[in-house]
Amino acid sequence: MLIRPKAGILDPQGEAVQASLAALGFAVTSARVGRLVDLEVDADDEAAAHAEVERMCAELLANPLIESFEIVTGPA
Amino acid sequence: MLIRPKAGILDPQGEAVQASLAALGFAVTSARVGRLVDLEVDADDEAAAHAEVERMCAELLANPLIESFEIVTGPA
Repeated sequence: MLIRPKAGILDPQGEAVQASLAALGFAVTSARVGRLVDLEVDADDEAAAHAEVERMCAELLANPLIESFEIVTGPA
Repeated sequence: MLIRPKAGILDPQGEAVQASLAALGFAVTSARVGRLVDLEVDADDEAAAHAEVERMCAELLANPLIESFEIVTGPA
């Protein structure tokens, strides 16, 4: 799953990345840094896996106040 | 772009996530934690943007010894 800082939330890590890339001469207009979590889940089908991972995000992995998450499922 | 710890590289953050999810009662067989960087780049076309971001990854954003990266491009 992909976890990103919500729009409007300060992202100091992204600002640092943007400044560092600019210092290296790269033209970047925006940089935002988030997290990526790859999970293997036992589930009957993809819909069940998606629902299970959504609960994990909400309960542990993402902070819904400041982060949005996106779940991408596929067979192992 | 998506940055992941390479297979075989210890991922303590992923192990912590797996243990925490197990403690909450979720059945997860594997968890790996990586980084996600969203960049906006000025480029003539998607191929040019891809090449530019690949250089950024190699020079600054990923550690090629222990991390692999995947670049996904699209229009702004």
